[in-house]
Amino acid sequence: MRGALLAFGGTLLAGVIAIAYAQDIKPDRAIKYRQGALTTMAWHFGYLGAMAKGEMPYNKDEAIRRSAIVAEVSRLPWEGFTPGSDQGAPTKAKPEIWKEPGKFKELQTKLIDETGKLATVAKTGDEAAFKAQVGATGKACGNCHDDFRAK
Amino acid sequence: MRGALLAFGGTLLAGVIAIAYAQDIKPDRAIKYRQGALTTMAWHFGYLGAMAKGEMPYNKDEAIRRSAIVAEVSRLPWEGFTPGSDQGAPTKAKPEIWKEPGKFKELQTKLIDETGKLATVAKTGDEAAFKAQVGATGKACGNCHDDFRAK
Repeated sequence: MRGALLAFGGTLLAGVIAIAYAQDIKPDRAIKYRQGALTTMAWHFGYLGAMAKGEMPYNKDEAIRRSAIVAEVSRLPWEGFTPGSDQGAPTKAKPEIWKEPGKFKELQTKLIDETGKLATVAKTGDEAAFKAQVGATGKACGNCHDDFRAK
Repeated sequence: MRGALLAFGGTLLAGVIAIAYAQDIKPDRAIKYRQGALTTMAWHFGYLGAMAKGEMPYNKDEAIRRSAIVAEVSRLPWEGFTPGSDQGAPTKAKPEIWKEPGKFKELQTKLIDETGKLATVAKTGDEAAFKAQVGATGKACGNCHDDFRAK
């Protein structure tokens, strides 16, 4: 009984500590984090877009490397849209993000799906298919920006 | 012969296009990219540091997930230290980065090694070893900041 109570106390304490750490994360840090992750993704996707548009030559190894990075990083920004971080630092995030979480989540999932496909198709070395998938991925970025990012 | 000349011309053209794209990347974009990647890494490492310091409870799954992200992202910032990007936007990057590329590279490699070890040890679930490796990884961050980041 005493052990159970102690264990229960420990679990409570752990929960309180976890909440305390999360609360320590101020909105400005969350905003900078998600912007950082999105900037990281955009940098690498920029090269893939340049290849797709013929602004730089297609290179299979680079396509593979940067697509894999984009696929990984596309999972990261979303945890930075913490409650209350609609303000606290300059941000283009629209309030709709917190009002329509289901729709926002759906568009995240769509992006992650498309970047996953991009990483897969890059490995095949099929240049035309790769370029088409860059287009589909760019569309997934844009769809979310249309609804949830201010101009 | 004509084919060889055409192929040579094509290679030259491809090289010129690639250089043109790289030159289009202005220093301020490179600076924002590398800061974005470093901010992304710091966000996730912050949770691991909080676990190691007891500011939040150790959680094996979270330790695995965030360590894997840190290991991946630790490879990314360095291509943002492009020639000429010692200025162009607010940056704490010291000029030494471009004067001592060998030493800078060595510290990048050290960090990538340590984050790789962190991702590996996180998977074992050995809490003490994980916490020790968080310390070793933090030291690798700090070593580079000491020499190459302004206060």
